[in-house]
Amino acid sequence: MKLGTIEWAGQAVPVCFAAQGILDLRAALPAGSAAATTLLDLIAGGQAVALGQRVQQMAAAGELAPLPADGVKPLAPIPRTARNVFCLGRNYADHIQEDNVSRDKQTPPPEYPQFFTKPSSAIVGDGAAIRYDERVTRRLDYEVELAVVIGTGGRDINAADALKHVLGYTIVNDVTARDLQRRHDQWFKGKGLDTFCPMGPWIVTADEIADPHALRLALSVNGEPRQDASTGDMIFRIPQIIESLSAGLTLEPGDVIATGTPSGVGYAMNPRRFLAAGDVVECYVQGIGRLTNTVQAA
Amino acid sequence: MKLGTIEWAGQAVPVCFAAQGILDLRAALPAGSAAATTLLDLIAGGQAVALGQRVQQMAAAGELAPLPADGVKPLAPIPRTARNVFCLGRNYADHIQEDNVSRDKQTPPPEYPQFFTKPSSAIVGDGAAIRYDERVTRRLDYEVELAVVIGTGGRDINAADALKHVLGYTIVNDVTARDLQRRHDQWFKGKGLDTFCPMGPWIVTADEIADPHALRLALSVNGEPRQDASTGDMIFRIPQIIESLSAGLTLEPGDVIATGTPSGVGYAMNPRRFLAAGDVVECYVQGIGRLTNTVQAA
Repeated sequence: MKLGTIEWAGQAVPVCFAAQGILDLRAALPAGSAAATTLLDLIAGGQAVALGQRVQQMAAAGELAPLPADGVKPLAPIPRTARNVFCLGRNYADHIQEDNVSRDKQTPPPEYPQFFTKPSSAIVGDGAAIRYDERVTRRLDYEVELAVVIGTGGRDINAADALKHVLGYTIVNDVTARDLQRRHDQWFKGKGLDTFCPMGPWIVTADEIADPHALRLALSVNGEPRQDASTGDMIFRIPQIIESLSAGLTLEPGDVIATGTPSGVGYAMNPRRFLAAGDVVECYVQGIGRLTNTVQAA
Repeated sequence: MKLGTIEWAGQAVPVCFAAQGILDLRAALPAGSAAATTLLDLIAGGQAVALGQRVQQMAAAGELAPLPADGVKPLAPIPRTARNVFCLGRNYADHIQEDNVSRDKQTPPPEYPQFFTKPSSAIVGDGAAIRYDERVTRRLDYEVELAVVIGTGGRDINAADALKHVLGYTIVNDVTARDLQRRHDQWFKGKGLDTFCPMGPWIVTADEIADPHALRLALSVNGEPRQDASTGDMIFRIPQIIESLSAGLTLEPGDVIATGTPSGVGYAMNPRRFLAAGDVVECYVQGIGRLTNTVQAA
């Protein structure tokens, strides 16, 4: 099942992307429910999947019409997470290798996951612009990542139980200002600018992803392939990531964890190739879909 | 004016701490306003200070009774920020020096602010327990910090205008698991555990702090002085911090920025002294007050 959020008639609407079309999840809520209900609310309430099933039944029975496709605008599946998006750095060996070569270093792979965050305010959806202000950065770069959406919260989750806490998967482009990333030492600032967290196009529920570590992930710029790898190449796999992150830190429904990027980023190319205004960046993850964003000069 | 939040009758109530006692800010809202209004809502609506003035007038005129002091429990002034708490590392020269000595390094002071975040879920109030789980960390440490609360949002704010965006100031104890901080390389994980962001006891509005860089800040453990410095010793001062952080990243009303800690942290003492269950940690910032929390074994 594909769950997400679209803008329709000026409102953010939680939806299921179904065979029949885009179905408003709120149609299956009891009468009198709040009109402003978000997908995050429904995930937190543990209702999202059941409502998705119900609206599909209603549509199949002719009781619910899809939203008119030409009137909707894509938004990120969770347009604003309740706290920052959790992210991992340096989680693919080939990306660490290209980083070492490009910077003439010999840094070994990390022994523990390297966590940082992107502000929830940086999230934008499929089709949205990536804001590029040359007064702030001259080194705009991309990173395609598989992202995990938590369905059931918890603290001190064991790796063996971790996948039970996963609602589904989406795509995150971990857009990065490389100059700020280096300059400020900690990665937050270079990865936290407005629009630097394209996410989407939807959440594919976990039941439809047989093995989250057997997915091709790829990224192109203006149609030219840049990144192409398998989620099987992660150093820390999703169960370990959830165990490590949740140790002493309670995960919450609707939390998003971006799991790191493989090789092929612009700063490690020889010569380096950063993003420019007008560039179209397409992220692909097998079994999920495509997330496309265009760089726009501020 | 002191603005904050207390728990009363099982509810989080936005209040003004006034000469007459603790005054419910909602008493000055129009009839029919949402009962669940938070201080963050009122800051975002630009109403917090005006409501504080109004409830003080009402109390002075005998139109409003303070909340009964023995029935209230302190909460953090903003018990849950809308996104993670922004923090600076390595912002006092003497703290960098003690770090270098303790780790036998010669790292120079940073040329740019080092930003990281603490999850909004880690915030606790004055009097709350700091959770200490020895299965997760064996190196629990403290850091007293002056924290800035944003009143008016904005992007690309100039240092010259920055203080106009400040609603007021509070205290943050940047509790840190030193072993996790080192192990995970990026600082987020070691600083992001549940209860690791004591904040309070209230926000003192900016009009009452003539110079935020002329405040004594100090910390004691079980009454023994550990940190004692002046906010004048910051490497990056608040206007620069706001200019740097807001470059390309929109600040929002209610954002909290912790501005770094001076020397005297436990890991840099010789011999090292980490926190233990039962320890009482008191943070003090001149003009604001005291924030006291007790370490409690999980």
